[in-house]
Amino acid sequence: MSTPRILITMGDAAGIGPEIVARAFLRGAAVDCAVVGDVGVLRRAMALLSEPWPVARLESVSDLVDCPPRCLPVIEPPGLTPGLSALPWGIVDARAGGAAAACIGAAVRAVQAGDAQAIVTAPIHKAAFAAAGVPYPGHTEMLRSLAGGMPVRMMLANDELRVVLVTIHQSLRSAIDAVTFDAVLETLRIAHRSGMGPRIAVAGLNPHAGEDGLFGDEELRIIAPATAAARAEGIDAHGPFAPDTVFMRARRGEFDLVVAMTHDHGLIAVKYLGVEQGVNVTLGLPFVRTSPDHGTAFDIAGRGVADPSSLEAAIRWARRSMGR
Amino acid sequence: MSTPRILITMGDAAGIGPEIVARAFLRGAAVDCAVVGDVGVLRRAMALLSEPWPVARLESVSDLVDCPPRCLPVIEPPGLTPGLSALPWGIVDARAGGAAAACIGAAVRAVQAGDAQAIVTAPIHKAAFAAAGVPYPGHTEMLRSLAGGMPVRMMLANDELRVVLVTIHQSLRSAIDAVTFDAVLETLRIAHRSGMGPRIAVAGLNPHAGEDGLFGDEELRIIAPATAAARAEGIDAHGPFAPDTVFMRARRGEFDLVVAMTHDHGLIAVKYLGVEQGVNVTLGLPFVRTSPDHGTAFDIAGRGVADPSSLEAAIRWARRSMGR
Repeated sequence: MSTPRILITMGDAAGIGPEIVARAFLRGAAVDCAVVGDVGVLRRAMALLSEPWPVARLESVSDLVDCPPRCLPVIEPPGLTPGLSALPWGIVDARAGGAAAACIGAAVRAVQAGDAQAIVTAPIHKAAFAAAGVPYPGHTEMLRSLAGGMPVRMMLANDELRVVLVTIHQSLRSAIDAVTFDAVLETLRIAHRSGMGPRIAVAGLNPHAGEDGLFGDEELRIIAPATAAARAEGIDAHGPFAPDTVFMRARRGEFDLVVAMTHDHGLIAVKYLGVEQGVNVTLGLPFVRTSPDHGTAFDIAGRGVADPSSLEAAIRWARRSMGR
Repeated sequence: MSTPRILITMGDAAGIGPEIVARAFLRGAAVDCAVVGDVGVLRRAMALLSEPWPVARLESVSDLVDCPPRCLPVIEPPGLTPGLSALPWGIVDARAGGAAAACIGAAVRAVQAGDAQAIVTAPIHKAAFAAAGVPYPGHTEMLRSLAGGMPVRMMLANDELRVVLVTIHQSLRSAIDAVTFDAVLETLRIAHRSGMGPRIAVAGLNPHAGEDGLFGDEELRIIAPATAAARAEGIDAHGPFAPDTVFMRARRGEFDLVVAMTHDHGLIAVKYLGVEQGVNVTLGLPFVRTSPDHGTAFDIAGRGVADPSSLEAAIRWARRSMGR
């Protein structure tokens, strides 16, 4: 393997995925990448932009070296539904969901075959996934399953802050129940092994991290013991700290990474300064996987105005992660 | 009444309250203020600083006009425990708790008598309050009771963001139960009447504001109906929105104020950029009350190093609020 190779999946064909992918290439942000997608969909996306590039169909990732400059290299998985490039913009469609899943599957197979080292995923639409009968609610679950089912965690990161989440897409009430000793300790292990530390702060669940049990006892019963267990394994974990100040402390450099108990404790902090530079990273997989920190944006899809900044940040993050 | 008059209560005598008050005067940030406190405690605090001012004992707020320049004006409530200025720094003491409460009580009486228009409170220590048998857990509850027991809400604000909280000092689990239709609607009314709007965003409780009931139904059952009820009363309330992006949207100017369901949803956002400029404002009282966004900092009390920035921001906020 010479240069690192990154595969970018096109995402939902009716959303902004194809056009932000195309624009990232036009802006020179994806020189070492190939797209896994439908050639017609990528051509349509390119045509939305000024000074579009032609699309070059590759047979495999290794053909990337022969791709001429100022061409968009696309690997098309076999068996994609015809007519994807005629789908209306911004509407949930089972064909788009199925094609998005097929591209993800092909990308994983290429990485598993050693043809590429990282996957950057453009946004899929969960309802289109479901309409297509894809047996996974989203990217993370699908990638985890295809990779063998190991525990994974979502990390959200920007230039200032890295946050790994113990719980994600569930009600706040059920998330409290999901904050167990095992879940916190496993999160700390995954965060530690990711190399994103070493100094890890653990945010509490309750106001003031429970104020010695006055405002909830999860810190005393669960989070502090799990943090101590992680320390006993050699992980440089600290806390639990009051949620309302730990992210600010990490931003100032006191910690490299914060483990947050709930989706919004972590994401409010990461997103507060703006989402353009946010990157979503799946930790725990046997390969690098990043994605932009936004969705399909059906409301603006097909207008050529979508901002590729977060996708470009995801590509940069993948590149840096492979170098480590 | 000529110039607006602001009373600053000295806070816990063993904490950083007296010294940040003294430093705020030395820095010229409190020209229209008088301190309600113990003369000896304020003298000791002044002595920690370079180029200290003498302390001038006032009989009442109206004497403030006669206070010479470069003097710290202090109104001493009757009956303060002797020896407060000999208390060790950084140790919980019932005498300090009792004195802090006496100063708050005197400040409220002065405002109720029309002698002043606003109260800025330096930090008290909750354990010292309790040790002194003060029948309130903290400032907010005491002020609310002395003012007649009306519903109040905590607002945290800085130059970029204003957040009003539906729930504060309780476990996250019990906070979820405390997010009721009445609590949300009352918060919206208080926020609206405060004049801090008009454009109010309501943050959801669950990830993605529940994603149409998929991740919790509090938005559908409680928060959306309460927001609609507020709109029917003429309040310019919007939402509920996903917690992880609504604060960023407000920071960018889309809303004037965010109502948050939990302590940490709101405070993670307000504090992320640093606490120095944060101000705590009690909304719903019949007078202006602000305080710095930090505690007694017993670990550094008595060393003359405490930063008065947040207290000064609280004074500025009180001044602006009176002008409205």
